[in-house]
Amino acid sequence: MSGDKTTSNRMPVNELPPSTGYSRLLTKRQLAEMAFSVRDLSKYLGTLKIKMRVRKILVITKIWDKATILYTNELVDWLLSDYTVYVQDILKEDESFNEEQLLVKHKSGRDKLKYWNFDLCEEHPQMFDLVITLGGDGTVLYASRLFQRIVPPVLSFNLGSLGFLTKFDFTNHEKIVRSLVDEGAIVSLRMRFECTIMKSTERIDDKSNSNPRHLGSEILDIVESDVTHEPDKTFSILNEVVVDRGPKGTMCMAELYVDDEHLTTVEADGVVIATPTGSTAYSLSAGGSLVHPDIQGMLVSPICAHSLSFRPLIVPDNAVLRVGVPYGARSSVWCSFDGKDRTELNQGDYVTISASRFPFPMVQSKRLGSDWFDSLRMTLNWNQRQQQKAYTNA
Amino acid sequence: MSGDKTTSNRMPVNELPPSTGYSRLLTKRQLAEMAFSVRDLSKYLGTLKIKMRVRKILVITKIWDKATILYTNELVDWLLSDYTVYVQDILKEDESFNEEQLLVKHKSGRDKLKYWNFDLCEEHPQMFDLVITLGGDGTVLYASRLFQRIVPPVLSFNLGSLGFLTKFDFTNHEKIVRSLVDEGAIVSLRMRFECTIMKSTERIDDKSNSNPRHLGSEILDIVESDVTHEPDKTFSILNEVVVDRGPKGTMCMAELYVDDEHLTTVEADGVVIATPTGSTAYSLSAGGSLVHPDIQGMLVSPICAHSLSFRPLIVPDNAVLRVGVPYGARSSVWCSFDGKDRTELNQGDYVTISASRFPFPMVQSKRLGSDWFDSLRMTLNWNQRQQQKAYTNA
Amino acid sequence: MSGDKTTSNRMPVNELPPSTGYSRLLTKRQLAEMAFSVRDLSKYLGTLKIKMRVRKILVITKIWDKATILYTNELVDWLLSDYTVYVQDILKEDESFNEEQLLVKHKSGRDKLKYWNFDLCEEHPQMFDLVITLGGDGTVLYASRLFQRIVPPVLSFNLGSLGFLTKFDFTNHEKIVRSLVDEGAIVSLRMRFECTIMKSTERIDDKSNSNPRHLGSEILDIVESDVTHEPDKTFSILNEVVVDRGPKGTMCMAELYVDDEHLTTVEADGVVIATPTGSTAYSLSAGGSLVHPDIQGMLVSPICAHSLSFRPLIVPDNAVLRVGVPYGARSSVWCSFDGKDRTELNQGDYVTISASRFPFPMVQSKRLGSDWFDSLRMTLNWNQRQQQKAYTNA
Amino acid sequence: MSGDKTTSNRMPVNELPPSTGYSRLLTKRQLAEMAFSVRDLSKYLGTLKIKMRVRKILVITKIWDKATILYTNELVDWLLSDYTVYVQDILKEDESFNEEQLLVKHKSGRDKLKYWNFDLCEEHPQMFDLVITLGGDGTVLYASRLFQRIVPPVLSFNLGSLGFLTKFDFTNHEKIVRSLVDEGAIVSLRMRFECTIMKSTERIDDKSNSNPRHLGSEILDIVESDVTHEPDKTFSILNEVVVDRGPKGTMCMAELYVDDEHLTTVEADGVVIATPTGSTAYSLSAGGSLVHPDIQGMLVSPICAHSLSFRPLIVPDNAVLRVGVPYGARSSVWCSFDGKDRTELNQGDYVTISASRFPFPMVQSKRLGSDWFDSLRMTLNWNQRQQQKAYTNA
Repeated sequence: MSGDKTTSNRMPVNELPPSTGYSRLLTKRQLAEMAFSVRDLSKYLGTLKIKMRVRKILVITKIWDKATILYTNELVDWLLSDYTVYVQDILKEDESFNEEQLLVKHKSGRDKLKYWNFDLCEEHPQMFDLVITLGGDGTVLYASRLFQRIVPPVLSFNLGSLGFLTKFDFTNHEKIVRSLVDEGAIVSLRMRFECTIMKSTERIDDKSNSNPRHLGSEILDIVESDVTHEPDKTFSILNEVVVDRGPKGTMCMAELYVDDEHLTTVEADGVVIATPTGSTAYSLSAGGSLVHPDIQGMLVSPICAHSLSFRPLIVPDNAVLRVGVPYGARSSVWCSFDGKDRTELNQGDYVTISASRFPFPMVQSKRLGSDWFDSLRMTLNWNQRQQQKAYTNA
Repeated sequence: MSGDKTTSNRMPVNELPPSTGYSRLLTKRQLAEMAFSVRDLSKYLGTLKIKMRVRKILVITKIWDKATILYTNELVDWLLSDYTVYVQDILKEDESFNEEQLLVKHKSGRDKLKYWNFDLCEEHPQMFDLVITLGGDGTVLYASRLFQRIVPPVLSFNLGSLGFLTKFDFTNHEKIVRSLVDEGAIVSLRMRFECTIMKSTERIDDKSNSNPRHLGSEILDIVESDVTHEPDKTFSILNEVVVDRGPKGTMCMAELYVDDEHLTTVEADGVVIATPTGSTAYSLSAGGSLVHPDIQGMLVSPICAHSLSFRPLIVPDNAVLRVGVPYGARSSVWCSFDGKDRTELNQGDYVTISASRFPFPMVQSKRLGSDWFDSLRMTLNWNQRQQQKAYTNA
Repeated sequence: MSGDKTTSNRMPVNELPPSTGYSRLLTKRQLAEMAFSVRDLSKYLGTLKIKMRVRKILVITKIWDKATILYTNELVDWLLSDYTVYVQDILKEDESFNEEQLLVKHKSGRDKLKYWNFDLCEEHPQMFDLVITLGGDGTVLYASRLFQRIVPPVLSFNLGSLGFLTKFDFTNHEKIVRSLVDEGAIVSLRMRFECTIMKSTERIDDKSNSNPRHLGSEILDIVESDVTHEPDKTFSILNEVVVDRGPKGTMCMAELYVDDEHLTTVEADGVVIATPTGSTAYSLSAGGSLVHPDIQGMLVSPICAHSLSFRPLIVPDNAVLRVGVPYGARSSVWCSFDGKDRTELNQGDYVTISASRFPFPMVQSKRLGSDWFDSLRMTLNWNQRQQQKAYTNA
Repeated sequence: MSGDKTTSNRMPVNELPPSTGYSRLLTKRQLAEMAFSVRDLSKYLGTLKIKMRVRKILVITKIWDKATILYTNELVDWLLSDYTVYVQDILKEDESFNEEQLLVKHKSGRDKLKYWNFDLCEEHPQMFDLVITLGGDGTVLYASRLFQRIVPPVLSFNLGSLGFLTKFDFTNHEKIVRSLVDEGAIVSLRMRFECTIMKSTERIDDKSNSNPRHLGSEILDIVESDVTHEPDKTFSILNEVVVDRGPKGTMCMAELYVDDEHLTTVEADGVVIATPTGSTAYSLSAGGSLVHPDIQGMLVSPICAHSLSFRPLIVPDNAVLRVGVPYGARSSVWCSFDGKDRTELNQGDYVTISASRFPFPMVQSKRLGSDWFDSLRMTLNWNQRQQQKAYTNA
């Protein structure tokens, strides 16, 4: 399975094609071009081995959890001997983190302990050679939020509770970091989705009922001159985007488009659109399959669908999905992006979802390929059973 | 979605790389090489447009169903004006097919009505320019059985009951065939699986208990000199291979390997391993997702799993799956290939499943890409509801 | 099982009204008095035939839907010849309802057209001999909301869209009403749940951390002197109560108690607790079974459970369920009652759910017993398939 | 509802034994006589406390498992001091059971060690005061097979692997048996199903096609004079009856009748019809809900249904279900009863399933009611999670 995965024909992370602008999906022409570049991207996805020169390490931790911060102190203390370390600015004043003790201990390298904030990560993602997260899968998702475009390789430690995204046991962190620097890292490039909220623009004749607007026509009938929507916020997500009914107790009603086709009307609590990486998270709870990260697909799973025939489905990752609220809908819907950034879609608004040009490089714990199957076995406790006790009556 | 699908860089169907021998998986080295060629194969999968020069057409029909044979007579009658037509040999004597009437009507071209049998299809698949099936999805699966290696393009007519594999309405058959010949056909190359049954070979020391055999070791520990299994029958399947408990009322217990790893012990009624094409058939009943045919995956879904955590999963199609019966198992299991060729696996036997080098070219009914979504909408009756009747009381 | 089961307004077990024999031909009075000790209620649930003397009919309709109001006018017009009819007060001014036309037509019985409001229904439920609903299942749920305690028999017409609760076709309304009055009605007494929100009362020492409160202890350890919660609103529901995460994108975390035991922590989007009548609604979407209304059970189904082993379960209807928010929870949860009356449960609050003493009498369309199976067959379109068209080529 | 409900050996409704009060402290005789009209049986089902006078104990063990037999020796050794013990006759010669050692040790009570066989249990079920099973849930099902009509109270020990039916830990067997004898036992009367295979009888005119037989008419249209079927074998089952496709790879097609109605055509791998006790076994794997044993229902769950709308359903336990093979069916189906007694149903045959008059009395491990919830929590490992390790770095 692995012979075809030679690294030589892969572009190193640093030579990724230059971004073509943060804001996208403005015109349908740009959309088509983006789809093409995504198809090329897929050649780079998968698992590869990279050599790393590590000088600057950014650390992400659970800043609200005292125990985790104590571990963070322990980690930073060890890292400072060799690396420049960036921790979140809020920890500067944190008692458990104890900057003072660290500075006393590392007198000669006082300037190697630095602090990051959201802006620094957004503006200079290239300056970090490695990101280390400490905690559960949530900290990994946080890393993805922090680096919405280019992402440094991410090494994720768990603190005893193995997750699908946190394979490394913190107990061995010294050995693991050393091995990674000395021998190189196996990195799995995980597909992310780029999600852009498209707000319906007001028309002069909106008030008149003479020509009611129709979402499907506005999305599918290409008329360049007619600007019907404007892009609002954009999110890169690693696990899933969820469109749901929000605070209301009623059903979510939304239209789902795949490329230039109307696929179905979602009548359900909501719909989960997940990456293969996200197939072990919310998507699984909604009834979706467990999908290997090398599969180039987008997982669409309804949440409590009204119709028994609306089953989870998987479409190729070069598709562009759109989920929108009809102009005549009774109520709005809400979007979540990796469980955060809750946003309302009003009548006429929609969200586009497509493969992102900026994948998420996760450091893997094992040889090429088998890491995901290990997680399956361990996290889901397959075939775990209590065994009949042996007869020990002497 | 479609721009990347240029035909120019695709190898025409007739220039497919030469087969490297029917029997495979003999050694693990060959296995590795095969996996590589399959990876290349995937570049050819997908939907493409081909020009066709049609002279010889093979017709497949439901030979046990009188009504369908009457339609077959109608079809052949029309085809004989322009093409050489092969029908199944058993129809030569069939009253409803009425060869005599056809020969009377097509006096000048008596030698254009010919008969096929299983051997002819197996030995000379290249001689047919087109296969036409008449009936349900079963007739399409039959075409796949008939052409276990190279498959001519297959055009499938339904007789009123739309299926996932039978998109064309027979009512329009004249127009459809003409358009296909004149304008070319859109063909979807569907992945098939090649399944080989590996029978455990007897060892001289089998009778002694001193060194009991272990299936996992024999599959995973590569010792070239030690022949433990010999290939038996091989099947190319279009929908799915099912391993189940067979006639017994007890649970199926089998070991599932992915490449060189033991993934899990299947404790269930059985397990379905389906292609994306098969995702709308048995796999769906077992809880699997609906998977677009362009997705390069193998769908593994347990049937009534004993453990709630054994959920349907999807692995890349360059994996080699093996399902086997442990040497110490209480009972054997049974395999089906596209619902046929029921075969017993005894203790120590296993079946290998991997992507086939011989895809199945299905003529599509519409523009690139959207055919599958049409089927979804129509066959599953999404969102079908009775509507409140309008107030018509005058 | 808690104190709320022995409240003074419940009839003691020994003072149950005498059973009126197996056929249970009840009078309206007996039906109205049907407010029993819950443990004995179940003897009266099921399907029974009653004789009715109908003089006053209350009509419920979709007041926001013009077409339905036109049908309502038609119905009321016909009813006014023989009965006193109550329609919702808001229709008095509605153009489509057209009171004026009705009054002109029924001059002699002008005082027979009356209007109801919420208060009238709450205070004098006994004054109505029959409730007629016009619309979908929603209008039937509305009838249940209107009559939270004693409910008159409810006859439900659909307008072309058959529902599980609306069996009668409006086209035949004259014949149906006449038959019901002349021959008696088959009534299915449907179990409802009584849901009471229990608000955590503030303690003087709440602010101090010295003795943190624990929901489980407060619910399960009965100490009469220590008032920890006070009842807030109470709802009788016909379909289901849903506890969910409300407006947040995060998981719902709630504790579920059955009688005096902690059953599980609900880590999910939410949990549906449904009556058998509700088993064909939301509960079905959440994966619950279809449960015959004569089954005396409470259906507990998680919505997108975090754990694959939390499967839908059914407990006896003499259990008292409680769903609450732990004192230390990160966030609140929300309750819906038959999809309405959205209410927040804060830390320490819980909702109790138990069988209601006030069942919901639905007029059935057929002989005893088979009505529900008819609905199954028709609404779910079992085994519906397109048939192959017959060979009609002459 | 069919003729088999009024067989002469059933007690008429009016002659029911008088209820012995709410606490229902039954004598062994009362328990043994518990063979009621089905309609009234339900009043006696549930959990009750009984006083027991124990002299003769029947022991069931896994006779093919050496370790379990060693435990059996240990148990019997202890029981012989006080009771007459019956073990399976095959153990008389078993080395591990070691009769000789037992007889040497219990010289004075040599005649207290006795052996049972199938016939003894069938003919004299009343002679045993208690049944003790040693092993997994399978041994409990075996007890049910052994006692197809009257069943003595069954106490079930597990050997380390907790099951839904085996609550007691063998480690504490001395204490448990003593407490049961001294203080009485809490017994849960579990509903069983009585399943009778009805074979289609040959008709004189079978060969002619002039009047083809129709299963539905023969089942539903009661014409006393026309004998169409004759009862074959009858089974009492504790968990479930399964009707499936048997050895074939094709779909099972069977007709399902509820009382005097045709409910649906089962197009699936098969259908599970389970008791509430069986809801945690096969039925759960097929997607059925977990149902408390006090619920008076029959669980019908398709296995891999062809249609997405055929969902698990629950009907009242006073229904009579029939599953049959249409006369025109392509193939037969197979039945299993608690996983055993595999039986073929040919064209025209059917199996009837209804509540049995002979419930299965299981000794419970705890106070009334909560035992089942304990099993849920423990066996399904609800909410089991690895916890983040506490920070222990000194």
